Amino acid sequence: MNVSEVALADSVRLTEDGSAVVILDQTLLPGKTVFLRLTQPEEMYEAIYRLQVRGAPAIGIFAAASMAVLAQSMPEDYMGFRRAFFERSAFLDRSRPTAVNLGTMLRRMEALVDRSADLPVPEIRKLLCEEAERIRQEDISMCLAISEYGLALVKDGDGVLTHCNAGPMATSRYGTGQGTFFLAHERGIRLHAYCDETRPLMQGARLTSYELTKAGIDCTLICDNMASVVMSQGKIQACFVGCDRCAVNGDIANKIGTSGVAILARYYGIPFYVFCPSSTIDWNCPTGASIPVEERDAEEIKTLWFASPMALPETKCYNPAFDVTDHSLVTAIITERGIVREPFEENFRTLFGRDLT
Amino acid sequence: MNVSEVALADSVRLTEDGSAVVILDQTLLPGKTVFLRLTQPEEMYEAIYRLQVRGAPAIGIFAAASMAVLAQSMPEDYMGFRRAFFERSAFLDRSRPTAVNLGTMLRRMEALVDRSADLPVPEIRKLLCEEAERIRQEDISMCLAISEYGLALVKDGDGVLTHCNAGPMATSRYGTGQGTFFLAHERGIRLHAYCDETRPLMQGARLTSYELTKAGIDCTLICDNMASVVMSQGKIQACFVGCDRCAVNGDIANKIGTSGVAILARYYGIPFYVFCPSSTIDWNCPTGASIPVEERDAEEIKTLWFASPMALPETKCYNPAFDVTDHSLVTAIITERGIVREPFEENFRTLFGRDLT
Repeated sequence: MNVSEVALADSVRLTEDGSAVVILDQTLLPGKTVFLRLTQPEEMYEAIYRLQVRGAPAIGIFAAASMAVLAQSMPEDYMGFRRAFFERSAFLDRSRPTAVNLGTMLRRMEALVDRSADLPVPEIRKLLCEEAERIRQEDISMCLAISEYGLALVKDGDGVLTHCNAGPMATSRYGTGQGTFFLAHERGIRLHAYCDETRPLMQGARLTSYELTKAGIDCTLICDNMASVVMSQGKIQACFVGCDRCAVNGDIANKIGTSGVAILARYYGIPFYVFCPSSTIDWNCPTGASIPVEERDAEEIKTLWFASPMALPETKCYNPAFDVTDHSLVTAIITERGIVREPFEENFRTLFGRDLT
Repeated sequence: MNVSEVALADSVRLTEDGSAVVILDQTLLPGKTVFLRLTQPEEMYEAIYRLQVRGAPAIGIFAAASMAVLAQSMPEDYMGFRRAFFERSAFLDRSRPTAVNLGTMLRRMEALVDRSADLPVPEIRKLLCEEAERIRQEDISMCLAISEYGLALVKDGDGVLTHCNAGPMATSRYGTGQGTFFLAHERGIRLHAYCDETRPLMQGARLTSYELTKAGIDCTLICDNMASVVMSQGKIQACFVGCDRCAVNGDIANKIGTSGVAILARYYGIPFYVFCPSSTIDWNCPTGASIPVEERDAEEIKTLWFASPMALPETKCYNPAFDVTDHSLVTAIITERGIVREPFEENFRTLFGRDLT
């Protein structure tokens, strides 16, 4: 595959025969473009945990495809099949706690198994492959719709600051928080992206600036702590970020550092937009206080990526992978059905036809 | 030298015979403790430019000591000596633009040469060595005084967030922005330091967490983009930062990311304190808008420190080394003469006996 095609290619794909899920290993970019063919549950768990596949929508697509693959070698009797399926699903569900899509898509695959008790197992396996593909196709439509709404929030020539990666690799196509850059580029609308590098895992440098640069989109890479300066210089007209889980009140969990960007944007009077497909809304989560935030290993801060350690072995680190941004800092939440503003809960329920409880 | 003694040892020292200036190479920490013996102007320029010596006070001490060393091999006639001295001084002055101490201490050494026109050159050389040592001794007194004032702003058990490095290595002893941690530790007052790693040059990880860990002071290293989270969790009772140049109105230039910390502190209602020895006040600089901000090479963001590049070679970067924090975000400026609050200009002039102009 030509490297320049990667940005618009599928970073997660179920093989046609359902025997494997093929992913672009996101930990090796920008240096190496390596595709992995995964067939075993432990490999799939590791792929999520190690961020070989990452981005809330991509994790959901991957989890569904993984379950379709694993189903191929499960027992032929329904009860044995169902038990094995739920066991594997619970195993994958433990790989990362924050992004809601992982659990949502696993529940969707489980529900299909539950309502297929009358079907022969080979038929269920086929339906699971179709469901996994449907989830991917829905994501493509969602990304296109959400990126269209994003276009309404900016104009030709604007500078847009973005954090972490919510582009094609984190989804199916286009992306959520960064989808608008790609759609704008296709239509000749010139946006200038400022990409926070996003420590400690460098997704903004390694993935976002890579995808944008490869696509020929004007972008500038900055360290996370430079966001205040570019905002103060009038270079930023809007902030676009993705979302890993959205509470019903509009509090959003996203990559660590997002809440800081939102606070800076508020200080400088810059609108802060969260791109949140409906699959990311957790209807069981009233506020951000209920969102579990993953804490990761100190070595990601001290040694990972580096040629030599950046701190002493005995130095303590704190490494939360996400943070929660209070809804009061969010100008609008962009979904595939439309742009939602305060009061978020009421407007979410109206838009998605869910009763206020 | 025992590594555990480094934190309280001199990171910049003029040899007794004035033949060389010896520095701890700060670019090799925490992995290697290497002292460099510098005798040539190009080495001295590089030492500042490459941040082998860094921190506004340490740069000032180093520049003065360097001029004392270079004076040893300058012409024996006063006019030739003076011309050579001013040429070298102007050369070193170009190494980094933002920290005011570099220029201030070079001007102080030049003034000594100017008022010594009647003395034999060997006598001037001796006076220059004494002046360089006096500058270092004044810095030690300043650090102790400023750290004492810092103690009045926190209490036992407080969490204090700090950015970049303004500890012993950045000064003579103790430090400015981090001096209070060391003084508190000596007196049995338990502060918990949260150290921003400070991208791109990692001074918070490589130097601050190193100095604090070696001294046995409780500290936690975080990425810059985690400051918002630890503040939101109530872990931070105050922010302490150093200063590279302070305008008369209280606007302060400090390491990139400082203004972001100040904005977050304001949002969370946490006091933000700037440790600013009087040598860092630029009386010719009315506001932060007049402070020159150094922009450094993109490779510091993309490749320096890393085992492999973090972005494509063609990806643009923006790499300002400092930012300016508006005085409205500063709770107080701590000098060696006392704690200064708004209105900063009036209170600076009262404290330092300078007329309002």
